Parts: sequence; structure tokens; C-alpha cells
Amino acid sequence: MLINCVAYQEGRKLADIDKREISNYLQRPDCFVWVALKDPTEEELEEMREEFGLHELAVEDARHGHQRPKIEEYGDSLFVVLNTIELGGEDLRFGEVDVFVGRNYVLSIRQRSEQTLLGVRARAEREPELLRNGSGYVLYALMDAIVDRYFPVLDAVELELENIEERLFAGTSPRGNIEALYYVKQKLTNLKHVTGPMLEYTGKLYGGRVPQVCAGLGEYFRDVHDHIIRLNQSIDSARDTVTTAIQVNLAMITIGESEVTKRLAAYAALVAVPTMIAGIYGMNFEHMPELKWEYGYPFTIGLMAAIDAWLWVKFRKSGWL
Amino acid sequence: MLINCVAYQEGRKLADIDKREISNYLQRPDCFVWVALKDPTEEELEEMREEFGLHELAVEDARHGHQRPKIEEYGDSLFVVLNTIELGGEDLRFGEVDVFVGRNYVLSIRQRSEQTLLGVRARAEREPELLRNGSGYVLYALMDAIVDRYFPVLDAVELELENIEERLFAGTSPRGNIEALYYVKQKLTNLKHVTGPMLEYTGKLYGGRVPQVCAGLGEYFRDVHDHIIRLNQSIDSARDTVTTAIQVNLAMITIGESEVTKRLAAYAALVAVPTMIAGIYGMNFEHMPELKWEYGYPFTIGLMAAIDAWLWVKFRKSGWL
Amino acid sequence: MLINCVAYQEGRKLADIDKREISNYLQRPDCFVWVALKDPTEEELEEMREEFGLHELAVEDARHGHQRPKIEEYGDSLFVVLNTIELGGEDLRFGEVDVFVGRNYVLSIRQRSEQTLLGVRARAEREPELLRNGSGYVLYALMDAIVDRYFPVLDAVELELENIEERLFAGTSPRGNIEALYYVKQKLTNLKHVTGPMLEYTGKLYGGRVPQVCAGLGEYFRDVHDHIIRLNQSIDSARDTVTTAIQVNLAMITIGESEVTKRLAAYAALVAVPTMIAGIYGMNFEHMPELKWEYGYPFTIGLMAAIDAWLWVKFRKSGWL
Amino acid sequence: MLINCVAYQEGRKLADIDKREISNYLQRPDCFVWVALKDPTEEELEEMREEFGLHELAVEDARHGHQRPKIEEYGDSLFVVLNTIELGGEDLRFGEVDVFVGRNYVLSIRQRSEQTLLGVRARAEREPELLRNGSGYVLYALMDAIVDRYFPVLDAVELELENIEERLFAGTSPRGNIEALYYVKQKLTNLKHVTGPMLEYTGKLYGGRVPQVCAGLGEYFRDVHDHIIRLNQSIDSARDTVTTAIQVNLAMITIGESEVTKRLAAYAALVAVPTMIAGIYGMNFEHMPELKWEYGYPFTIGLMAAIDAWLWVKFRKSGWL
Amino acid sequence: MLINCVAYQEGRKLADIDKREISNYLQRPDCFVWVALKDPTEEELEEMREEFGLHELAVEDARHGHQRPKIEEYGDSLFVVLNTIELGGEDLRFGEVDVFVGRNYVLSIRQRSEQTLLGVRARAEREPELLRNGSGYVLYALMDAIVDRYFPVLDAVELELENIEERLFAGTSPRGNIEALYYVKQKLTNLKHVTGPMLEYTGKLYGGRVPQVCAGLGEYFRDVHDHIIRLNQSIDSARDTVTTAIQVNLAMITIGESEVTKRLAAYAALVAVPTMIAGIYGMNFEHMPELKWEYGYPFTIGLMAAIDAWLWVKFRKSGWL
Repeated sequence: MLINCVAYQEGRKLADIDKREISNYLQRPDCFVWVALKDPTEEELEEMREEFGLHELAVEDARHGHQRPKIEEYGDSLFVVLNTIELGGEDLRFGEVDVFVGRNYVLSIRQRSEQTLLGVRARAEREPELLRNGSGYVLYALMDAIVDRYFPVLDAVELELENIEERLFAGTSPRGNIEALYYVKQKLTNLKHVTGPMLEYTGKLYGGRVPQVCAGLGEYFRDVHDHIIRLNQSIDSARDTVTTAIQVNLAMITIGESEVTKRLAAYAALVAVPTMIAGIYGMNFEHMPELKWEYGYPFTIGLMAAIDAWLWVKFRKSGWL
Repeated sequence: MLINCVAYQEGRKLADIDKREISNYLQRPDCFVWVALKDPTEEELEEMREEFGLHELAVEDARHGHQRPKIEEYGDSLFVVLNTIELGGEDLRFGEVDVFVGRNYVLSIRQRSEQTLLGVRARAEREPELLRNGSGYVLYALMDAIVDRYFPVLDAVELELENIEERLFAGTSPRGNIEALYYVKQKLTNLKHVTGPMLEYTGKLYGGRVPQVCAGLGEYFRDVHDHIIRLNQSIDSARDTVTTAIQVNLAMITIGESEVTKRLAAYAALVAVPTMIAGIYGMNFEHMPELKWEYGYPFTIGLMAAIDAWLWVKFRKSGWL
Repeated sequence: MLINCVAYQEGRKLADIDKREISNYLQRPDCFVWVALKDPTEEELEEMREEFGLHELAVEDARHGHQRPKIEEYGDSLFVVLNTIELGGEDLRFGEVDVFVGRNYVLSIRQRSEQTLLGVRARAEREPELLRNGSGYVLYALMDAIVDRYFPVLDAVELELENIEERLFAGTSPRGNIEALYYVKQKLTNLKHVTGPMLEYTGKLYGGRVPQVCAGLGEYFRDVHDHIIRLNQSIDSARDTVTTAIQVNLAMITIGESEVTKRLAAYAALVAVPTMIAGIYGMNFEHMPELKWEYGYPFTIGLMAAIDAWLWVKFRKSGWL
Repeated sequence: MLINCVAYQEGRKLADIDKREISNYLQRPDCFVWVALKDPTEEELEEMREEFGLHELAVEDARHGHQRPKIEEYGDSLFVVLNTIELGGEDLRFGEVDVFVGRNYVLSIRQRSEQTLLGVRARAEREPELLRNGSGYVLYALMDAIVDRYFPVLDAVELELENIEERLFAGTSPRGNIEALYYVKQKLTNLKHVTGPMLEYTGKLYGGRVPQVCAGLGEYFRDVHDHIIRLNQSIDSARDTVTTAIQVNLAMITIGESEVTKRLAAYAALVAVPTMIAGIYGMNFEHMPELKWEYGYPFTIGLMAAIDAWLWVKFRKSGWL
Repeated sequence: MLINCVAYQEGRKLADIDKREISNYLQRPDCFVWVALKDPTEEELEEMREEFGLHELAVEDARHGHQRPKIEEYGDSLFVVLNTIELGGEDLRFGEVDVFVGRNYVLSIRQRSEQTLLGVRARAEREPELLRNGSGYVLYALMDAIVDRYFPVLDAVELELENIEERLFAGTSPRGNIEALYYVKQKLTNLKHVTGPMLEYTGKLYGGRVPQVCAGLGEYFRDVHDHIIRLNQSIDSARDTVTTAIQVNLAMITIGESEVTKRLAAYAALVAVPTMIAGIYGMNFEHMPELKWEYGYPFTIGLMAAIDAWLWVKFRKSGWL
């Protein structure tokens, strides 16, 4: 689905144009066209491929989708795959934005994502002195917008982790904690799959040899790279925390088991000792003077209670009860 | 066994030729010969070695088989070892495709593998404008086909892992889970042995200095490299998941044991308390007024039942039963 | 809030100047201005941006704060983000110092930090022969001062770790130890987030190509770099120790549980054996000669005591009690 | 001990020569001398040092032995230390072959090793067209022979590991398994000490700048390098398997303990319930009608048996017995 | 404290000189001065700083001490920090040797170390043909001597580890083992802090661009580097062994616990079964024919003994007792 198709010159919007007019505008110097598609059909992709002369392998990637993030140079043009991430209930939902960037065109294709990119275009049009930098600046604006949206997702996962952390030392729900930690780790791994490859690629968009369309925008792409570094660092750190938390949880389980064992032993003692005493006075010896004593029975019961009380206090003191 | 032997010119099939005609075709400019063998005999290999002037060390590797994937340059020609992977019941089956590529020849040798490569030839012949790139393109087509077949194998292993994951938190079959996880890890390690070395080698087929036969095909070999990166990433991620799952399984076992201990303790209490009471009334004191009471017996039984009922409720509430 | 604003020439303080005079002094050769702000308002930042011609992206970073440590070149000037760390009760408190350095100016912005940097200015003014090196030396002095303050923080965390270590082998408070270790690890991770990125950046301030303002100060910046290496090494080492300590703690818990089990078993035996004997003499057989024996009862009690004494000695010897 | 001392020219053996004749042959062009020593005395080493002009530091290393594998350049000559590995009962036995290679000489010194290298000389002499490459080819032949002998050793260790693996899930001998795994890991570590350093060094014998004596033999040394890579990969993989197997073994132990606990609990219940019932009918109440019932006793015994039978079935079903 | 101060020319000792004469000798060509200090005072350091024109930052490092090993270039001179390690009872004691090396001087400062370096001077003076290489050779001699003294320290720690290893599978003192392993790991970490940084620095003293004073001594510094590699490898390997040993110890503890549980269960059964039987014959049914049987009592006792004997044999066979 075609979202919009606009021609820009000197950083200012010229006009919303029709798909068929694109080639006219591509010939004008200092002019570039920015086309936005959403979940395009085969035909739309083919149309664009012809219009902009895109490479077959790149178009095939866009057609199949489900690519890992990457930035590939095809001659003077770039093919950029970015992942979008959305919070969707319990899980993370991943979408994809494919961007083809040439000297005088930008083609952005949003796939399986509810996040609109209209705001990016609006912001870019409000800053003509920056948009004057051409198609490379549009690429920056798209990358910046998409990467900025990773932060709240990561924050949500980190919050989830902090909530588990609070329950961790209470030791009340080890089974729930371990399951929650397992799924937090899975989410972090998925996030890492998005930010990890980008780290490698964005580092090549500034300093040293850069693709031609990015020339002169080094400080902007370094800013994106810097965000990606921060994301990666936070993700790695959170993954490390999860690993430690799983270990801690295991320790808490073992500690909990140890405490249960002690409690059981204490209660067992409280029952076993009276049982032993009762057993003794249940013996059938003919000569057991206590049995004939009038207060034998209440005394014995009292003895049992006294021993149990003493044991109770002792167990309490040593923390077993 | 010779599968086929075909001469190509300008991207089009000239003719199926006889082994003895090869040298004639090798002399023609813009012409190349593509020979396919399957589990060749010593003689066939020797024949080919002489025909194409292959290096002794490379031929020796092809003769012995069981090589790790690699790409070696011998002067202007390449010796490429690729592994094939097939799902075979419980296990993975590994085969090998050795490819010798020179300016004007391709010799592909399939070993211990049921996967036919005829489809590769057919597809290449359907796209003469690409096949025009010569023997390097044939190498790409073979690599692309073989690497593409890794994905369903990895998917199957990942599915196996997801199935274990589902059983993991049920905690019902820890022994089965641990064994299954162990073998999934072995499979992933074996897959990694195939894709890990390739990552290093395919990265040298585009950008910078590349072997002469690969020249001008950078974007195609980058595509293969990109697939290998994705495979590696998925395998690494799955291996990481297995490691975590083993830890989780251990935690589940310990949690399970802890729960069993609590359950046992609860049942023990339900039996021990009545036993203690019975012991008390089994004592032989002469002066135990309750013993003479007419309703002593039913009252005691009732008391036992009441205590056990109370304990039962308490244990239930605290989750021990 | 403006802390102070001073012009320097030839390593000596010229005068405290007004914000509006800055541009006059910037034009003088061999003269530089050092402005210090604390938690500045938007207006103050904007003022400085115009005065010194700072890059919008850098100013935006300073405005938002909460950056990771970094050193970025914008043309001839540097934008440096440093983190300050303070011990605040149980936790570590992190602040930030942003430094903009150009050929003839230094702008240092302290954010969310109680650590005053006045001492740095005083020390720099006491050493005019060094301050003569210009704005780059001021950057060194600031970095040196801030990095030096990391050491006592790390020492405090290491002390905390040593205290836990001492309790570790006593095995008395496994639950407390594991929690303490977890939080020490978190602190070390946070420290690492400060020193890790700096390692990479400070290494680029000496040797090879260095930013112009740092030229000729290589030995000073290498000294800072050397401190950062030492911090990183100590942090890595402490983290490794925490990991081992968590493992050790888990082992101590398991050992402790094992010892409790043995103790319980010993006590259980001391009770169970007399109970069994009592049970035997509680049987109602008509022909049990011992029952009629006058000393049967005291003998049996004695037997019970003797067996228990023997068991006690045996358990003691084998370390179960 | 001098094994042999032979002069070669144009790839063919000239003659077995005496030690004192060496210098004569060294002066002839296209001629090289290959001396083999075994556990040499100080004097023999000194003699050779003078004859070939070896560097003092290299000779000292050869004298002391117990070096790690390495390849060092001393001017135009190479000093190569290779480790030999032999299976010796339970343990691995490590020996050493030191090789000094110059343009016109090879001095190989075998130390603490039973593996003869005579086969290498024989094979080299059978292939004069290769031996024509000179002293560098002899070095290759020695390295190739020694590295090839690592494979059966590694195979033996891997077989040992597979045997443990089979016992692992049976769970019968956890104590034996853990000990066996520990020693397998030690052996793998020792193997890695041999192959790890070689990886680094053999990679420098082909491609880019290579030592002069290795010039023109790139494909041969790459072949050795390739073998070393395979060994390293297999060792790393086996080490990883050992680590996982240790974890699995720990899990199996815990599972086993959990199963024992359940079994015990089941048997305890089978004894405790009849004991409780017997206790009840052992009470001394005057009014217990069942006691007077003629079939009270057999009925009670029957009841006990019935309950135990029912429990038995239940425990069986839930897998506790 | 000044240990000695000697001038050398052409590899031979000229004279023991006074501190005040140093500058005279520094001016002579081919002459160099070697001064040795031990725990110097501020004044001594200041004196030397002026005499040799040392850099303030390097002198400050020497003044503070407790540096990590490093090699820093200050113009044409080198500042080298080496750590000394001594076995001191249970712990390792770390000292420091700081070496300032210029074209015509060596200043070595020994701090907090009992290891005398007089032997180094003596050995150097015995080999004038090597000492002729100048101050760089003195640096080599000092490094070589200090690094050689690391080996016996590492051997002692490895021996300690082997002793623990032997106790490991006996399973007798898990608590002691874990504590011992923990401290061995700490020692290895401390050793690594000494050898790890040196690896990086010594690698820069030969091959490629080297500091001027080291020129022409590449083979000697490579020898030091080689020793450092061996130390590092051994330390890494020992650390790895400790990690595995901690895991193994944990497994042994769990196995031990499991065995205790089984033993307890077996003994419990030996007591519980007779108790149950006694309970049955303690019931008060009127009609229990066995009670009247004359041999009822001895038969029952016999029955108990027989069952226990049978259980004993069964438990023995299954390894529970």
C-alpha cells in the first residue's frame, strides 16, 4: 500500500506526486523523491524496483521480509533493514522497515508494524535546513526515530526484571520467578538480535570511508550509533543480571529447602519424644512402680509437655522454628 | 560416479560432452565446463586431477572426505568444501560437497549425501544472463542452494527445543528433559561446526581482494555470507537457550524435590500425631481416669480425626499438600 | 547556575569576567575562557551554545543528561561526558560532568552531583607552567580529578565484598550473603558502565592521531588512561570474585543442609531405638519371662540409656553430632 | 644420541656423512644437511650450535626442553618446537621435537619421546620432486607427521568421553562419572596446550610475509594449519561437551536423590500406617467394643494389609515405587 | 636507600661512583650509569629525577608505588614497572621494581620486596660481550631475573591445587576443599594481575617499532615475552581447573548427601519394621491366638531379627549401607 510519495528540493517539499511522475523528478538536480510503502504487494515492489533501478537481491530480501538488521551497499545506493519493536501484551512484536536510499530517492517500506512513520516526515519537513542534506538525512531521521522507540521497550523489560528482583529474596515463588526470568531472558535475546547487528553496521556510517549518501552527516549517524551502543550495553547488563538472578533463585530454593528440612525436624522431635515416653510406660513389666503411683499419669503428661516446651524454646532460639 | 558433464558458453548450455572431450572445450575462450561427480572412485578423481590440473593436496582432501568447510585458493583456482546436512530420524546426517573452481571449469563432487544438486544446474540454466558470469556464478549457485537447505534443518532443531521448553515448566519429566536438551545441544554444536568456519571464509569472497573467479559477483557472495550470519546467530542463540534451559531444569528439579519434601512432611504429621495420642492411651498407669470413661475411645478417635482435619486444612492453605 | 567564568592567558588567570565579555576574550590570541555551570537551565545552555558555537547534537546530549561516558569530536572541538560517582549510604549515586573543549574555551557543566570541581581550578591555577598548555590541560585536570574520585568508591565496594567473604565460610547467613553478593554485583556492574566506555575513549587521546586540543599532552592523558585500566582491572577482578563467591555460597548451603540432615538422623536414631525397645516390651504375649523379672524395668531403661550413649559416642566420632 | 646425518642435493640423498664433514657440505650450493638427534647430551648440542651457528637462546631452550610449541625466527633461520603426544595407559605422555631450520640445514632433536621420525625421512626420500624444495620441505614433512599423530590421540579421548556419555543418563555411577569427566577435561586441556599455540604460529607460515625457508611451500603449510584448526575445533567442542556433561551429571544426581526421597517416603508410609492402627488398638480404654469381637484381630491385620496394598498401587502409579 | 651506583663502558665496569659524579659519566660517549635504590626517600627520588631528567608523572608513580606492571615511553626513555612475587607462608607477597631506562642510564628502584637484585648485576658483569649492548641489556637482565622468579611461585600454587585435587574425589572434607579452592583462585587472580598486563607490554619490545633503548635486543625481549606467555597459559589453565574443581566439589557434596540419605533410610527401615511388629502384638484384642502360644515371644523376636537381617543384606547389595 502506497502511503505517500513526495518530491523535495533544497530541503523543502515540492509536491505530493503520482507514482508515474517519479522519473521526471529524479532527473532534476538537487531534487529527491521520498516514497513510503506499507506491506507492499509484489506488483508495487516490482514497480519501485524498475522506477529506482533497485538490485534484485535487495528487492528479494524486502519481498521475503524477516531479515536481520543490516546495511548493504549496492553501488552508490544503500539497502537498509531496520527492525521495529512493539510491546504487545506479554510478548514483544517485531516488524521491519526496509529503506532503499540513493542519491535522489528514498524508498521506505514498513512491514508487519503498527508504528507509523508519518511523524518522521513531518519533523523532517519542519527543519528544511537539515533536510537540505538530501536523502541521507532522511535515512538518519528514519533510523533515529526507529531506534528511539527501542528505549521504552527496553525500559519495560527492565522494569519487569526489577519486579522479579524484588520477589527474588522473598523466596516465596521460586517456580514463578524462574519462569519469569526465563522469558525475560528470551526477550532480551530477541532485543539483542535487533541491536547487536546494528552496532556493527551503524559504526560504518561515520568516520573513515562512508557510503556516499551519508557523506557530511557523520555527526548525525554517530548519534544513532551512540544510542545503539547504549542499548546494547543496557541489554548486555540486563542479560547478565538475569543470569545472576537465576543463580540466586536456585540458591534461594536450596536455602528454602534447607529451612523446611529444619522446621520438619523440629516438629518431628516434638512428636517423637512424647511417643517414646508413652512407649516406655506402655511396657508390660510387672514391676514398674510409677504405674501404680496415683499421679503417675498426669506427671508423665506434664513431663511430655515440659520437654516439648523446652525443645520449642531451643528450636526457636536456633531459628529452626 | 559421473552425474553429468556439460560445456557452457555465454551463459548457455553448449552440449553434454564426454569426459574425454573436456580438454577441447577448456581451450575455447568464454567457455567453461561443469562436471558433477557423486562418491567418485580413486580413478575418477585421478582423471579429473589430470584433466583440470588440480593440486595434489586438494585432491587428497577430496579423496579422504570428512573435511571441515573451507575455501582454499590454489593459484587462480579455488577448492571449496561445503557440508550438507540432512534430517535423518533422530539424528542429523552430514555429507560433503567438494567444489573445484577454475576460470573455465567447475568440478562438484557430492559425497555421502542424498541431496541431489540437479536443481541447481536446472535453475542456473534457466537464467543465462546470470550464468554468463561464468564458473564463479556456478560456485555461488551451489553455495546458495546448499546453505538454503540448512534453514529447515535448523528450524527442526529449534522446534525440538521449543517442545522441550513447553515441558520444562511443567516439571513432569526432568530426566527426559535433561537428556533431550543434551542431545539438542550436541546437534547445535554439530551445526555450528558447519556454519562457524563458513562465516570466516564466505566473508573473504566479497569486498577487498577476492579470488579472481568470484570477481564481479560480490553482491551474490555477500548474500550467501548474510545467510550464514543469520544461521550462526540463530544457532548461538539456540545454544544459549539450551544452556539456560539446563539451568532452569536443574532449578525445577530442586523445586520439585522441595515440594515433595513438604508433601511428605505433611503426610508424616497426619500419621505421627494420632500415633502419639494412641501411645499415650496405651500407657499402663493404674490411675488414668479417661480409660474408664465410657466414651473415651470414640472421643479419642474423634480427637485424632479432628487434629488431622485441622492439620490438613493448614497444610492445604500453606500449599504443602 | 553559573559557578564561575574566568579568562586565562599564558597559564595565568587574567580576570573573573562577565558572561557578556566572553566573546571579547575569545578573540585574543593565547587566551582561553573557562566557564563552569551547575545544573544549568535551558536558557543558560542556549546562551553558551551561541557564545561558543557548540554543535546542536552535543548540546542536546548535555540538556538531556544521563549519557554514557564518551568523548566526541565536533570539528576541532571536543564534547566529553564524564560520570561522577558518590557513595550515598547503601547505594552509589551517579552524576555527570559534561565538558565542551575548544581551542580557546572550556565549558564544564556539572549535573546531579554534589562533588565540587573548584579544587581542580585552584590546583590548575597554582601550576601556571602546566596551565600554559591551554584548554587541553584543563580537560586533563578535570578528567584526572574525576577519575581519582572513583578509587575510594571502588575501595568501599571491595571492602564490602571482603566483609561478605569473611562471613562466607562461616556458613551462618547464606540468605544474607547471597543478597549482599547480588547487590555488590549490581554496584560493580554500574561502576563498569562508567569505566568500561572510558577505557575505549581515553585510549584515543594519546599516541597516533589525537584531537588537536590534546596535542602535546600525550603523557598526561596516558596517565588518565592508565588509571582507567587499573580501575577496570580491579572491577573485573571483583566481579569474578563475586561470581565465585556466589558459587561458593551455594556450595556452603548444600554442605550446611547435608550437615543438618546428618544431625537430624542422629537425633532421630536416639529416639527411635528406645521407642522400638519399649514397643517390644509393650507386646501382650503371655510368656515373656523378662516382664516378670523384678529388675526388668530398670534394666530395660538402662539398656535404652546404654544404647543411646553408645550411639551418641559413635555419632560424635563420625562428626554427625 | 646422533640418529643420522645425511646430505641432500636436488632432492636426492647424496650420502650418510660424518658429523665432521657437515661444514664441507654446507658450502655446496643446492645442498642441505639433515641431522637427527635423540635426547642429545650437552656436548652434542654445543657441537651442533657451532656447526650451524645456532643462536644461544634457542639452544638453551632445546637444552632445557619442556617448552611450549613455538616457531621463532632467528635471522634467516627458524627454531621450531613441536610437542609429541603418546597414549600411555591412562595418561597422555608428552614429548618434544625441536627443529632448527636454515637455508641449507635441518637439525631435528627428539626429546622424551618414543615416536621415531625415521618414517618421515624415508617418505621424503621417496619423493625427490618435493624434497627438491629444500630444508623448508623437511620442516613441513616433520610437522605434518607429528600433527597427524595427534588425531588418534584425540580420537581416543573422544571415545572415552562417548563412553562416559552413555553411562551418564543411566545415572548409576555419578561418582565415577564426575571423576572420569574431570580427568577427560584435564587431558583435553593438555591437548589444547599443544594445539592452541600452534594455531597462532602455523598461520604465519603461509600467506603474507613468510620466513624465507618456507617460501614457495605455502600450500603445504596451509595444509598443516588446516589440520591444526580441525584439532582445535574438535578439542574445543569436546571441552564444551565435558562442561555440559558435568552439569548434566549434577542434574542426574539431584534427580536421583529426588527419586530416592520419594521411594523412601513410600516405604515409610507402608510401615507408618499399620503402626498407627496398631497403636490405636493398643490403647487401654475399657470400652473398646472391637477388642472383644472375635474376628477383630484378623480383621485389623486384613485392614492393614488392604491399606498397604492400596498405597502400594497408588505409589506405583505415580512412579514413586 | 642507595644500594649501588656504577659506571660501565664497553660492557665493563668502570668504577663504583658517587651520586654526585653521575653527570660527569653521563656525558662520556659509550658510557652508562646503573643506579640501584631500595625503598627510596622522597629526597633520593627527587635527586635522581634531577640527575637523569626523569618525567614528573613517572616519578610520581614510583613515589606512590602499588602500580600495575607497565612499560611507558617518555620521549627516548622508558619507565618500566615490574611486580615481584614472593611466597610468604599462606599468602603471596607482592613487591615492585621500577626501572627508568635512558640511552646512558638505568635507575632501578626496588620497593617492598625482599628479593635482592645483586645477582643480576653480577651476572651482567660476567658477560661483557652482552653488557656491551648498553642500558637496554640491563633492562632485559632485570626483567628476565624477575620473571624467572615467578615460576617457582606458580609451581607452589599449582602444587597446592594438585593437593586439593587429590582430596576432591575422596569427598571427605568438602567444606575445607571449597575454602582452599577459593583461596587458590584468589592467588591465581593476583598472579594474573601481574602477568596479564606484562603480556601486552613485552610484546611491544621486539618486532616492528621498538623503543630505541631496546633496539638490537629483539631476540632477548622475545625470550622474556615467551616466558610471560607460558606463565599466562599456565595461570589460565589453573584457573580453569579451579572452576571445574569447584563444580566437581559441589557435585561430590550432592552425591555425598544422597548417599547419607540412603544410609539413613536403610537404618530407619531396620528400626521401623520391628517397631511395627511390636505395635501389632501390643494390641489389646481378646482373641489373638499367638499371644497365648508359648513360643510366641521368642518367635516374634526371631521374626524381627530375620526381617532385619534380610533387609540388611538387601541394602548392602544395593549399596545403601
